[in-house]
Amino acid sequence: MTISINPIGFIQSDFADQKQSARQPAIDGRHGALIIHDRFIDGLDGLAEFSHIIAIYHFHLQQQVLLRARPCFDPDKDHGIFASRYPTRPNHIGMSILTLENICGNKVYCSDIDVINNTPLLDIKPYVKQFDRMENPKSGWYDGVDWTAVKI
Amino acid sequence: MTISINPIGFIQSDFADQKQSARQPAIDGRHGALIIHDRFIDGLDGLAEFSHIIAIYHFHLQQQVLLRARPCFDPDKDHGIFASRYPTRPNHIGMSILTLENICGNKVYCSDIDVINNTPLLDIKPYVKQFDRMENPKSGWYDGVDWTAVKI
Repeated sequence: MTISINPIGFIQSDFADQKQSARQPAIDGRHGALIIHDRFIDGLDGLAEFSHIIAIYHFHLQQQVLLRARPCFDPDKDHGIFASRYPTRPNHIGMSILTLENICGNKVYCSDIDVINNTPLLDIKPYVKQFDRMENPKSGWYDGVDWTAVKI
Repeated sequence: MTISINPIGFIQSDFADQKQSARQPAIDGRHGALIIHDRFIDGLDGLAEFSHIIAIYHFHLQQQVLLRARPCFDPDKDHGIFASRYPTRPNHIGMSILTLENICGNKVYCSDIDVINNTPLLDIKPYVKQFDRMENPKSGWYDGVDWTAVKI
């Protein structure tokens, strides 16, 4: 079964290519915008009242699928692709939780975008603390990362 | 531009149809499993060490796209589809944060699945508290819902 997806817009960012792009919104994301096709603007109604949004997008420049990958946060060990956020995943679907600044027409400005300019945007969802802010999560190998060393 | 997506597996749940399905994992989700196609099993390496996972899936029985919807948590008002988690969204992509119980071969058992049985699974990502657990989020209209009345 193949599912056909048509982007709802694209992501505008400072990152021109894969070598430049940020690692995660919380680490080294930068100001940018989600640009929504005009026909979907009505769908943004009420979104400005949220502090965070979930962007679902396509790693469009990624060709490879690797079931084990070596993410930049742990250069010494491979991890299963579903235990990582690395882009070489089947279907190349990415997800970032972004901090919403404001919405103007079809532009959703965010302060911590981490993807390459022109990344196809597949969906926006509101970040809902009642569903998405889990209590006492265990984050596997990410819990062993020295985050003070990772931050720029 | 159309992007072709091939499911990595499907979600096994107690919910036979849309009328029965849960509203959210945290509200009335139930025990179930993500069943991964055998060729992707290596990608699960390390996932068992996470307490929560992010399932991205396709609302495969949903035909409609509505840019304004009336989610069950607020039956008195329409909300923009991108300010809600309602399924009538462009591309019909769903996302749930699930509590991982254990992994056995190609089966990822979770305690709070909220989707219909046989929902096509597009991706699994680990829930990483350093990226996904936002501090002091404002959740728009969801913050006005009486959650004590909503819980079953």
